[in-house]
Amino acid sequence: MARASAGRSTLSRQLQLLDAFTVDAPFLTLSELARRSGLPVGTAHALLADLAEQGLVERGTDRTYRLGVRLWELACRTPGALGLREIAMPHLQEVHALLGQHVQLGILSGGDVLFLERLSSRDAVVNATIIGGRLPLHASAAGLVLLADADAATRDEVLAGPLRSITDATIADAAELRRELHRVRAQGFAVADGYIHPSARGIAVPITGAAGETVASVGAVVPNDEDPWMPLVDALRSTAAGISGALRSAALPQSHPEASPGGRYRTLVNSSQESMQFLAAPANRRANAPERVRAAPR
Amino acid sequence: MARASAGRSTLSRQLQLLDAFTVDAPFLTLSELARRSGLPVGTAHALLADLAEQGLVERGTDRTYRLGVRLWELACRTPGALGLREIAMPHLQEVHALLGQHVQLGILSGGDVLFLERLSSRDAVVNATIIGGRLPLHASAAGLVLLADADAATRDEVLAGPLRSITDATIADAAELRRELHRVRAQGFAVADGYIHPSARGIAVPITGAAGETVASVGAVVPNDEDPWMPLVDALRSTAAGISGALRSAALPQSHPEASPGGRYRTLVNSSQESMQFLAAPANRRANAPERVRAAPR
Repeated sequence: MARASAGRSTLSRQLQLLDAFTVDAPFLTLSELARRSGLPVGTAHALLADLAEQGLVERGTDRTYRLGVRLWELACRTPGALGLREIAMPHLQEVHALLGQHVQLGILSGGDVLFLERLSSRDAVVNATIIGGRLPLHASAAGLVLLADADAATRDEVLAGPLRSITDATIADAAELRRELHRVRAQGFAVADGYIHPSARGIAVPITGAAGETVASVGAVVPNDEDPWMPLVDALRSTAAGISGALRSAALPQSHPEASPGGRYRTLVNSSQESMQFLAAPANRRANAPERVRAAPR
Repeated sequence: MARASAGRSTLSRQLQLLDAFTVDAPFLTLSELARRSGLPVGTAHALLADLAEQGLVERGTDRTYRLGVRLWELACRTPGALGLREIAMPHLQEVHALLGQHVQLGILSGGDVLFLERLSSRDAVVNATIIGGRLPLHASAAGLVLLADADAATRDEVLAGPLRSITDATIADAAELRRELHRVRAQGFAVADGYIHPSARGIAVPITGAAGETVASVGAVVPNDEDPWMPLVDALRSTAAGISGALRSAALPQSHPEASPGGRYRTLVNSSQESMQFLAAPANRRANAPERVRAAPR
């Protein structure tokens, strides 16, 4: 019922419009949206009216469109993104305070590494990572860690290439990448010296989920200099152990002695112990916690 | 063209399904989704297939659905949410390290305060705030700050009630709320003692945008005790001044001497100085920065 005559659903064409917004072009006019999405102006206009009515896009006073806050609000209930980030956050803040450089959290997504969080500081080294941005698996430390533990099909697809070079240091040869993945798997961390920018070194280690499987990577981007990297690897390992433990505690039944507090909230929220107990208590959910803490108004 | 016979668009019914996921119910079966959204099971099934094909929902091995990571990825290009959070983040981290209690960033949205960020620590006081969650304007310090500076129509609507009590301390009387808003506007900060939980005190101050208008609020949730709150207000004011200044710098033309670096990226990204220069350089955008840093693969 949602199919148009061309055989593509209305939703897929609305997503073409939403995808037209990029990090360096967050404000677009109707004609820019039509051009970027490849849709006729009239079609784009009708689809945008529907998207605007639902709050998924917003129209500015200058007649440009931008992605709407409702999209972000919905996204805050995504366990695989905000939930993982919430559980990781206190650990990321701790290691960020220790290192003072970029610290970032990434997951495997559609053949790339997708970054869920990045904590930076003004004077940190150059880094291409953007929250919600992607990097190729073969060209980043986070990607190497995730690829080393990925299933054979994903590994084979990346190894089949093309392996695009970003700098002279990026691994662009399949045999070399295979050896590097073997090394990363054996040692449990990846170091990427100048793969994306000559001045930057990426270091990353895996985070494991409730069943011991690799679900994400935590890494740092630091200057590509002569400093030994093992102290950084050790710090990141300790961070990853903390996050992995917290993921296990959040997945345990609430009755388990090692379960973190917060009941069903544990998948998406990570606040103080008292807050989690407050949110989880059925009496508070009904009597105290405002309805709208949990759901957007309709 | 996207209208069904009932006069509601396909998208609006797909959003009914997405809205069925809440913070305490992030994983739902088809029948739960149909029940919560009020749609017939067959309709829900067809709409979910379309949503799943586009990555907006994901299906787990246990046959439950959850919101998809693609939704979060799109949301990361929302200037009014992630952009504001990115610019505020270094300042939030600084005041969070100083206070050690919950620090949070909220905006006015649909007659509520909507929280974009919350930094907590394990031992912090009880707090109902959730990232992406909402609180009533009259019942939170952030809400009072935003309401005090809101347009007359928004203020009148809230003052017309109902003013729901969450605890005995919540302001539930319109005349009292009017006096409190006057006080907040005059002094430039709000203190909410036990409005949501008897043990918690909320303190919030306004953040101003490029034109000096109130665009957000930064606040802390601390124990509701005998401690003087002015040191906290002063710390938050300093944080708000930093964020307000960064918002102004991000809105200036790149050629302006006080503009922050990063070109068009400044609206959504806030990384180190070198990173922003790297992202903004046209040569790097073409030659160095991987295509997929900016756009999801199709």
